[in-house]
Amino acid sequence: MFQFWASSDRKLSCGVDAVMENPGYCSGSFDGLHHPSDDDDDDDEMVDIAGATLDFSTTDDVPPLSSGGYDEYSSSSRAGMNGGGPKKLVDLLEDPLPGVGTYEDFNTIDWVREKSKDRDRHREITNKSRQSTVALLRSLSDAFSGWLLMLLVGLMAGALAGGIDIAAHWLTDLKGGVCLIGFWFNHEHCCWTSNETTFQERDRCPQWQSWAELIVGNSEGAFAYIVNYLMYIFWALLFAFLAVILVRAFAPYACGSGIPEIKTILSGFIIRGYLGKWTLITKTITLVLAVSSGLSLGKEGPLVHVACCCANILCHLFTKYRKNEAKRREVLSAAAAVGVSVAFGAPIGGVLFSLEEVSYYFPLKTLWRSFFAALVAAFTLRSINPFGNSRLVLFYVEFHAPWHLIELAPFILLGIFGGLWGALFIRANIAWCRRRKTTRLGHYPVIEVLVVAALTALIAYPNSYTRMSGSELISELFNDCSLLDSSQLCGYKQPVNVSETGVGNSLADRPAGEGLYTALWQLALALIFKMLITVITFGMKVPSGLFIPSMAVGAIAGRLLGVGMEQLAYYNHDWLIFRGWCSPGADCITPGLYAMVGAAACLGGVTRMTVSLVVIMFELTGGLEYIVPLMAATMTSKWVADAFGREGIYEAHIRLNGYPFLEAKEEFEHSSLAVDVMRPRRGDPALAVLTQDSMTVEEVETVVDSTHYSGFPVVVSQESQRLVGFVLRRDLLISIDNARKRQDGVVSTSQVVFTEHAPTQPPEAPPPLRLRGIMDLSPFTVTDHTPMDITVDIFRKLGLRQCLVTHNGRLLGIITKKDILKHMAQIANRDPDSILFN
Amino acid sequence: MFQFWASSDRKLSCGVDAVMENPGYCSGSFDGLHHPSDDDDDDDEMVDIAGATLDFSTTDDVPPLSSGGYDEYSSSSRAGMNGGGPKKLVDLLEDPLPGVGTYEDFNTIDWVREKSKDRDRHREITNKSRQSTVALLRSLSDAFSGWLLMLLVGLMAGALAGGIDIAAHWLTDLKGGVCLIGFWFNHEHCCWTSNETTFQERDRCPQWQSWAELIVGNSEGAFAYIVNYLMYIFWALLFAFLAVILVRAFAPYACGSGIPEIKTILSGFIIRGYLGKWTLITKTITLVLAVSSGLSLGKEGPLVHVACCCANILCHLFTKYRKNEAKRREVLSAAAAVGVSVAFGAPIGGVLFSLEEVSYYFPLKTLWRSFFAALVAAFTLRSINPFGNSRLVLFYVEFHAPWHLIELAPFILLGIFGGLWGALFIRANIAWCRRRKTTRLGHYPVIEVLVVAALTALIAYPNSYTRMSGSELISELFNDCSLLDSSQLCGYKQPVNVSETGVGNSLADRPAGEGLYTALWQLALALIFKMLITVITFGMKVPSGLFIPSMAVGAIAGRLLGVGMEQLAYYNHDWLIFRGWCSPGADCITPGLYAMVGAAACLGGVTRMTVSLVVIMFELTGGLEYIVPLMAATMTSKWVADAFGREGIYEAHIRLNGYPFLEAKEEFEHSSLAVDVMRPRRGDPALAVLTQDSMTVEEVETVVDSTHYSGFPVVVSQESQRLVGFVLRRDLLISIDNARKRQDGVVSTSQVVFTEHAPTQPPEAPPPLRLRGIMDLSPFTVTDHTPMDITVDIFRKLGLRQCLVTHNGRLLGIITKKDILKHMAQIANRDPDSILFN
Repeated sequence: MFQFWASSDRKLSCGVDAVMENPGYCSGSFDGLHHPSDDDDDDDEMVDIAGATLDFSTTDDVPPLSSGGYDEYSSSSRAGMNGGGPKKLVDLLEDPLPGVGTYEDFNTIDWVREKSKDRDRHREITNKSRQSTVALLRSLSDAFSGWLLMLLVGLMAGALAGGIDIAAHWLTDLKGGVCLIGFWFNHEHCCWTSNETTFQERDRCPQWQSWAELIVGNSEGAFAYIVNYLMYIFWALLFAFLAVILVRAFAPYACGSGIPEIKTILSGFIIRGYLGKWTLITKTITLVLAVSSGLSLGKEGPLVHVACCCANILCHLFTKYRKNEAKRREVLSAAAAVGVSVAFGAPIGGVLFSLEEVSYYFPLKTLWRSFFAALVAAFTLRSINPFGNSRLVLFYVEFHAPWHLIELAPFILLGIFGGLWGALFIRANIAWCRRRKTTRLGHYPVIEVLVVAALTALIAYPNSYTRMSGSELISELFNDCSLLDSSQLCGYKQPVNVSETGVGNSLADRPAGEGLYTALWQLALALIFKMLITVITFGMKVPSGLFIPSMAVGAIAGRLLGVGMEQLAYYNHDWLIFRGWCSPGADCITPGLYAMVGAAACLGGVTRMTVSLVVIMFELTGGLEYIVPLMAATMTSKWVADAFGREGIYEAHIRLNGYPFLEAKEEFEHSSLAVDVMRPRRGDPALAVLTQDSMTVEEVETVVDSTHYSGFPVVVSQESQRLVGFVLRRDLLISIDNARKRQDGVVSTSQVVFTEHAPTQPPEAPPPLRLRGIMDLSPFTVTDHTPMDITVDIFRKLGLRQCLVTHNGRLLGIITKKDILKHMAQIANRDPDSILFN
Repeated sequence: MFQFWASSDRKLSCGVDAVMENPGYCSGSFDGLHHPSDDDDDDDEMVDIAGATLDFSTTDDVPPLSSGGYDEYSSSSRAGMNGGGPKKLVDLLEDPLPGVGTYEDFNTIDWVREKSKDRDRHREITNKSRQSTVALLRSLSDAFSGWLLMLLVGLMAGALAGGIDIAAHWLTDLKGGVCLIGFWFNHEHCCWTSNETTFQERDRCPQWQSWAELIVGNSEGAFAYIVNYLMYIFWALLFAFLAVILVRAFAPYACGSGIPEIKTILSGFIIRGYLGKWTLITKTITLVLAVSSGLSLGKEGPLVHVACCCANILCHLFTKYRKNEAKRREVLSAAAAVGVSVAFGAPIGGVLFSLEEVSYYFPLKTLWRSFFAALVAAFTLRSINPFGNSRLVLFYVEFHAPWHLIELAPFILLGIFGGLWGALFIRANIAWCRRRKTTRLGHYPVIEVLVVAALTALIAYPNSYTRMSGSELISELFNDCSLLDSSQLCGYKQPVNVSETGVGNSLADRPAGEGLYTALWQLALALIFKMLITVITFGMKVPSGLFIPSMAVGAIAGRLLGVGMEQLAYYNHDWLIFRGWCSPGADCITPGLYAMVGAAACLGGVTRMTVSLVVIMFELTGGLEYIVPLMAATMTSKWVADAFGREGIYEAHIRLNGYPFLEAKEEFEHSSLAVDVMRPRRGDPALAVLTQDSMTVEEVETVVDSTHYSGFPVVVSQESQRLVGFVLRRDLLISIDNARKRQDGVVSTSQVVFTEHAPTQPPEAPPPLRLRGIMDLSPFTVTDHTPMDITVDIFRKLGLRQCLVTHNGRLLGIITKKDILKHMAQIANRDPDSILFN
């Protein structure tokens, strides 16, 4: 079952498919004592132990205040004892058992326990550091290991991103031709050494030959065009084929953008191997191939996955992060910031992206470290200089003209377009992905990728705006036309009064010329094509990001609107709305700004990012000036899109895949109570509980075997149902198994004792099995009357896995994260069984 | 007692002094039913009611699952019922009693209850909106009221900040002279119309006359200097006197920076009037006066307070925010961002400041709205254009030269200086403020202000760098010298090879000239003076911010180091460290950048800001280029300062004043358990509890009167101690009082019933008083074994006021926020009685 992904041919969609049907709150996947430690190495076994044994000598059931045994409570007697977990176990369990306190694959971690464990570790180091210099140094190195790790993550992710950029650039150019002085040069690089390039044709140099020139020795004419066309399709298919084959062969987790899964992992879910070294290597290589194949996808989302893989692998260098799931997630949150930072050259935007969109638990300490890592990564990338222009940012834009208040109207229009497109895209994409999951379509991922790649190449080649890569297209659309621009988009009629030097009022609004009209038509066709093809591309079994395709759609729409506005203003200077700010000869409308606003609106509609989106865009331009248009469009886009459905694309994919993700942004608005959600439901058998000192090993095993629950409450007695603690199934099984193997005399009739002191037994009875050490003495409880909105808040904020429900001090039931998600699905009229994992 | 502040002459320090000694976890301040609704209007009574009455017909003590009455639990029967609070009360309490569910002054709110109340309100509106168009419109207007409020806050705060800037500028200039064409013009404005200003003396124009010119008709010579000196001192004293008198007369809360109190308020504390209209008006006026008086203080911190006052007052326009303490705090968090945004022209930095430094509960929705409000405010301020240069930012800097990796060493040195100064400043300032609180010094606030103002004026006047206002000084220090600069700081020897036009390599490193050496001496003296005077200035009874003085100290130190480095490089181009990047004639060291890094380091050392500080500084320059030096200095400064004490100045002042603030940044590192912290302690009388159906009104009143606890747990019976719910003292007293007044037959012998159904009573018994409606049916509980680090986490994350402690299902004790703070103080070897409020 755990090997499913590594070898399966039946993987249908990009994501973790459910392979088990586990009703109720059972874990359903623990049947042996040692979980199959599978092909991946990135989630070590944690050997700490959970559950404390405290030196508590009063009778367990008498409140200590009334028993006079209060001395036992003075804090000095317990100094050095740890929090959620024990330092020592009363019996033979002096050393923590391997496996106790760890998690299985596809399960949710217990944030409270993990954080408590880390605090214990920290406390221990701090205490020791007062004793010797070596310990002090160790304590210091422990304190700085977080920063070192961040530095390494920044360096590694920055370097990888630089490599990906360079490789993707080269492979993309390879579709068009090859460099004769060295096939490893990309087009631009190849022509750097050439002296023969003129200003007008700087893209052409003799060293760079298109495939037609090489094969038929002719670069003009229909035949050469067809040869180039076919070669383009050939390379596209080759790259796409390699990408999908590599993904299938080495790391099925490398497909998709990875952000939905990373969100889920950061919220506390465990997917072993998702951030492992094979995923990293495969994703890096296939990302280059997928981007180069010309498919309508971007590399920005997958870069976040790549950065998280780097962080996860580097975590292994430091015990503090290797052994603690909560601490590791802090690093992963920072890595998400790093990913966006290198994708856009926007460190602040990256940190805000991580905060707003990806992270679940993001303490301020992590904010600061993320910022550091994001900066390191951005500067590493810049020193690699993949774009050859010493620019930090992906799309550097410089606008000259200010915008006018009236222009807010078209900006808001773009926002509406972005919102509509975002909502539509999400619906269409999810419908398509669901179809892929449920029909035969999903059985042929390789063929699917090849067909889509062929289709894309076939349609994209004739149109120069679809032939170029997404980021090139966006760059060109954002660009503000200067007089010297040779691009078709700047094909304005030259004004007659232009000064010789080409400066003058060169940027003034001008009438559109032939070239521009052609460009507009091509752009309109490109828009339709991109809108359609992106829907079926996102979710295929290759690495695929959504940022660039979404931005491209928005940028095209924005540029179209911008040019339209510009021409309107040019021909109607005397209209009321243009009067005063847009006189003839003035540079009043900047179509590039419209493209940018449109890109932000569409990206906002799809992802529902807000602050981070505006800040990323702000970092591209560097001018606070343009924040207001961006904000207006983003706000409108979010409102419009939210009206059709509150989920962004990532949340939609999380839900599609049934991950146990408790959305922090969404308010729980229903008025149910804890008692409505808890198990057992009416008519179900009573809750399976253990008693603290009246069950034998055999009875406990019977209870465990007859249920699939992942944990059992321990009560004083079946009659009183007063709660003592909570044991996890996994820990219980490991401990019993271990005791039977090693502990003398523990047999099936031995009593299982969760109290501090074993009850008096007849002398001939076998020695009891003491399990207080593995019991969580501080289980979370709510009363049955607790409204579910509060319960959900508690689960979210504390990161709980389960919570017990009491009524007037008696145990009544249990609520797990899965129960809550199922309940929420039910309220929203969705299928509660779509929640697949615990 | 509540009128204390409005009229008292005994106020000793800037902050809320404790006026009551309340040991243990009692509230100690509720003795009447109606709290004195005092001189302020900004915390309306909330008339919602807390505690739910649910249609729960099973016997109260039997778990519903085993009783067969499960039908009562179906969610449909409870649709529309609210969460932590009820919609209806079973008995005569159909209408919520006024006062039930509100808070007293100097008490902590219950975040869970407030948020639950808001969700109820929202649910109700949503449900209604499906019924009619009017309700739909109301629902829409409710949804957008948050945005409207943000817009208004941004506009109002931006306008006020603009007004403050203009007024402070004018009054500051008034100390030096007056404009003859209109006394309301400031110096710069006055000279705008003059044609007679030359480039060299652009500050001098005939319209602007110094006091000496006006009074003795002579602007040169020793006598004129003395006249100007005396006038300077006179005005300084006048402004300082007016400021302190106005603060004392109208709004004692207007003193100080306000940030410690705002942090406390945002964490859930109630200080009535702190954000009221009198505070706003007084603070605005006295801030202008205090800044103009030349005292070593800034307006940036108080601007945050001003913005929060605006927000609080504007909240009254919207029921949603007026009536809910949690929602109102969301708006206040945004207002804090607005304050910093207008102070520095840095909207993104402002939002991060609010997130990092001030806010407690900051959901992502608020992040987005804060950003909106911060932008609106920044643009409002810009359209007012107080600096006359269309710049958004306070200190606009443009550097030309890049920095070199080797320069990181001096930057880190600046970081160390900043950290040391920050730590030292905090200690010295806190020691001084404690002295003010405890000795006779505090009895004469007016005299103190006058003495400090006189001292400041006396010493500051002769030195041109202390005479100018703090922000002017910083501006000048940040400035990169160009050849044409007439400032003393740019008094370099002119290179011989300079081209006629003054351009050429004008920015190359040059040898220091006479002027620069003078400037350096003056700066060194200014540094010492500022360092000393700021310690005694911050905390006086006038509005005073710390940002500008801290930055000034750092900027001076940085500039000194920068010039030193520059000269070192000039005279030693051949040194190994300068070789390769700093050849003769190159522009390698930018002293202005050093000043900026130094300013960031000192501000970081004092406030311990990290990300927000770097982002604010980044927004000043607009170049990602300089983030790395800023980050290096800020990181060093924080580490160095943290080594001497982990508290920033605001936290230190919070502790000094004994506010109940649970720091979210600090980890609780001790290993105590809930049982160590809870009350009752060993030897204390048992916990005062109410039983659910066996006490009479008189007995309840006896329990309430004999204790000072702010709430009482309700248990099934004294013997079982099984927890049913929790009632607040305030609600209990109001309800009993009301019942005695209005409810027929409720007498002292009436039974108080917290169950759903009254127990059978003898027929002659008086009718029972039913109080289930005011009982919180979902009190938070932890077990006695819960480690305190987890308990603290729960308190922080959920915003609890109190939490009950159980052992094996039986009630054992209670932990309040105050208990936790006292416990933490004890661990840190501080006086636990320094925590003054609940």
